[in-house]
Amino acid sequence: MRKIKVNAFSLLEKIRKQSPVVHHLTNWVTIYDCANVVKVMGGSPVMAHANEEVAEMAKIASALVLNIGTLTVDFVEAMKIAAKSANEKGIPVVLDACGCGTTQLRNCKTFELLNDVRIDIIKGNASEIAKIAGEDVITKGVDASKVEKDLIGLAKKIAKERKCAVVITGEEDIITNGKKTYIVKNGHEMMSQIVGTGCMAASVIGAFAAVEKDLALASACGLVCFEIAAECAAKGSLGPGTFKEKMFDCLFHLDKKTIDKMQKVESE
Amino acid sequence: MRKIKVNAFSLLEKIRKQSPVVHHLTNWVTIYDCANVVKVMGGSPVMAHANEEVAEMAKIASALVLNIGTLTVDFVEAMKIAAKSANEKGIPVVLDACGCGTTQLRNCKTFELLNDVRIDIIKGNASEIAKIAGEDVITKGVDASKVEKDLIGLAKKIAKERKCAVVITGEEDIITNGKKTYIVKNGHEMMSQIVGTGCMAASVIGAFAAVEKDLALASACGLVCFEIAAECAAKGSLGPGTFKEKMFDCLFHLDKKTIDKMQKVESE
Amino acid sequence: MRKIKVNAFSLLEKIRKQSPVVHHLTNWVTIYDCANVVKVMGGSPVMAHANEEVAEMAKIASALVLNIGTLTVDFVEAMKIAAKSANEKGIPVVLDACGCGTTQLRNCKTFELLNDVRIDIIKGNASEIAKIAGEDVITKGVDASKVEKDLIGLAKKIAKERKCAVVITGEEDIITNGKKTYIVKNGHEMMSQIVGTGCMAASVIGAFAAVEKDLALASACGLVCFEIAAECAAKGSLGPGTFKEKMFDCLFHLDKKTIDKMQKVESE
Repeated sequence: MRKIKVNAFSLLEKIRKQSPVVHHLTNWVTIYDCANVVKVMGGSPVMAHANEEVAEMAKIASALVLNIGTLTVDFVEAMKIAAKSANEKGIPVVLDACGCGTTQLRNCKTFELLNDVRIDIIKGNASEIAKIAGEDVITKGVDASKVEKDLIGLAKKIAKERKCAVVITGEEDIITNGKKTYIVKNGHEMMSQIVGTGCMAASVIGAFAAVEKDLALASACGLVCFEIAAECAAKGSLGPGTFKEKMFDCLFHLDKKTIDKMQKVESE
Repeated sequence: MRKIKVNAFSLLEKIRKQSPVVHHLTNWVTIYDCANVVKVMGGSPVMAHANEEVAEMAKIASALVLNIGTLTVDFVEAMKIAAKSANEKGIPVVLDACGCGTTQLRNCKTFELLNDVRIDIIKGNASEIAKIAGEDVITKGVDASKVEKDLIGLAKKIAKERKCAVVITGEEDIITNGKKTYIVKNGHEMMSQIVGTGCMAASVIGAFAAVEKDLALASACGLVCFEIAAECAAKGSLGPGTFKEKMFDCLFHLDKKTIDKMQKVESE
Repeated sequence: MRKIKVNAFSLLEKIRKQSPVVHHLTNWVTIYDCANVVKVMGGSPVMAHANEEVAEMAKIASALVLNIGTLTVDFVEAMKIAAKSANEKGIPVVLDACGCGTTQLRNCKTFELLNDVRIDIIKGNASEIAKIAGEDVITKGVDASKVEKDLIGLAKKIAKERKCAVVITGEEDIITNGKKTYIVKNGHEMMSQIVGTGCMAASVIGAFAAVEKDLALASACGLVCFEIAAECAAKGSLGPGTFKEKMFDCLFHLDKKTIDKMQKVESE
């Protein structure tokens, strides 16, 4: 691994200029934050989950974000309809495998989604992705369990098998398409002390994937911007409540100079 | 159009004193903000959507707010039951036509609601209202598309045909009952940089309509208060995240002097 | 009643160290705040409501929190499945009787839950609990109506009949298991000026009940911590919007000294 620089700002600028529609079928806990994080970056979030409209909505979107955090059987059916429509249009589909490894339903539905539709970016924490890689892990609710494994190896394996990008978020994020691998070392521990940063990360990735065809690069750049905003917000922060609001402020104002100076990215 | 003064504070005072119950069937993205905006003004928001209770809940309310932002077929059925109950009781029904013009489902369900129950105040952005007026527009998700039309004319046309008040929110808000028309020029661009201000506007209008029978006046006064609070919050604001929280603070503290000094209202 | 000291900090420390999973089936308005309040205390919230997974999710949890604020018939069925699983595992089940007394559906479903599964802690405001005690009260939406009754007597009656803990939140909170009764006089009026503090209180109680078998003591300690955080947040607060975020900050940082100094608890 060696230190590199990614041009994250140019993609952020594209989002700000093009205002891509990012269609979500996400969870009910963090739905506002997922929408708002896209909005403050300059994108146009839309949340729609009715079977009757998801295909049409995906057709006007530039990216689709799926999140199984509060899944039901019916909701996953709507996700599949939306994803098939996105696949037809050729826009990227992000799956946040939220809570995969916790229950049979989540495991089963994650693999159904991966097998029935084309997922372009699989995103999860260490235990969620390990589960997808076929490891025998148990996720404790929606928070990551410790995984004693070569995470980069697991991510690459999935990426190659499924011909997609894989993102493992954590203290150090791993992003790979099986060939090229990025490690993003930005971020702040405050991110793990509030609800929603993981879900927001998937939405950020969706917005970046809407403007950049290299999905591993898009994901890395998205995480760089999001996590630098978090670092800025954490400076002088009084706690996790005010931190989140400041993170939105910082993401809104994020400029080239800050990104160039603060980014910590490595690649093979 | 000439500059006028509206007595928005007297209505805000009524909300604070009477604490009207404002029943919502709204979208899952902004549901907290819709409830909270009513609460910080002194109202009593209630969110209830079960078919079995919506009629009864509407009966204890002083206004009903419907928002199709994350509609499903079943959810719209519950809206109709609630609205029929509200119609019987004679309390005002506000419809936020969120995303109308985006999908067939939203178009179809908007007109079903308009035709099957009595809607007293139709609220939307330019492209949503243009769609309701029969124009051939396409809304890009839930954000307004540019509409090259005489918006005041469109609003009046709907108001006269449907004998209701019509509100078009935007940089300048248009409020009309077909006879009397108000333009509210308050507000701040920061409002369009976060998710939820449009939905909150409908809830604010619902709370004001709960205490004032002249629904165009109630809507204008509601928007004046809400948007002045936004202007106050934007002063010295660090960004859209902290802005929203400050907007709640400002609305909570909003006084007569501030409203009288800052309001920018015009009327024919 | 005499002034006492409870060792609330030791329980908060247990939450911080053990990070118990608190499974929620809660309402869609405050779902984020319910999750986040558990998270900032160091717990691990999980929101899951699909019939197919709630039993399994409850099995990995240390407490279950049910809230009927935006109930539907199907949602209450999922609550029963989750609660039966929690009962089998022997983890505490908290019921927030949000809006009980408002509609027939809420009354009916509250009693169904109380009778069909074991509820360990019943939590509500004065009119909600009075309704459960069989009093002829009408709750105005989700805000408490005035109840001209001996609230301590009502709470004790329910606790004895149902062999559970009962919590009535208000300016002074009443907590009883029928034998031991606590009065918590902490808190701040700002708490009643935003949406969600009642729901968050139930989640806080759930987290404390996850680490302490004496459920009345756990509830009292939870309310002490939550309400002291609110008092700290209200100091120099500019309004209800920024107050809520500060409350999360204060809860996150809450220390032994502050709790010991500020707690206002009485007991028989």
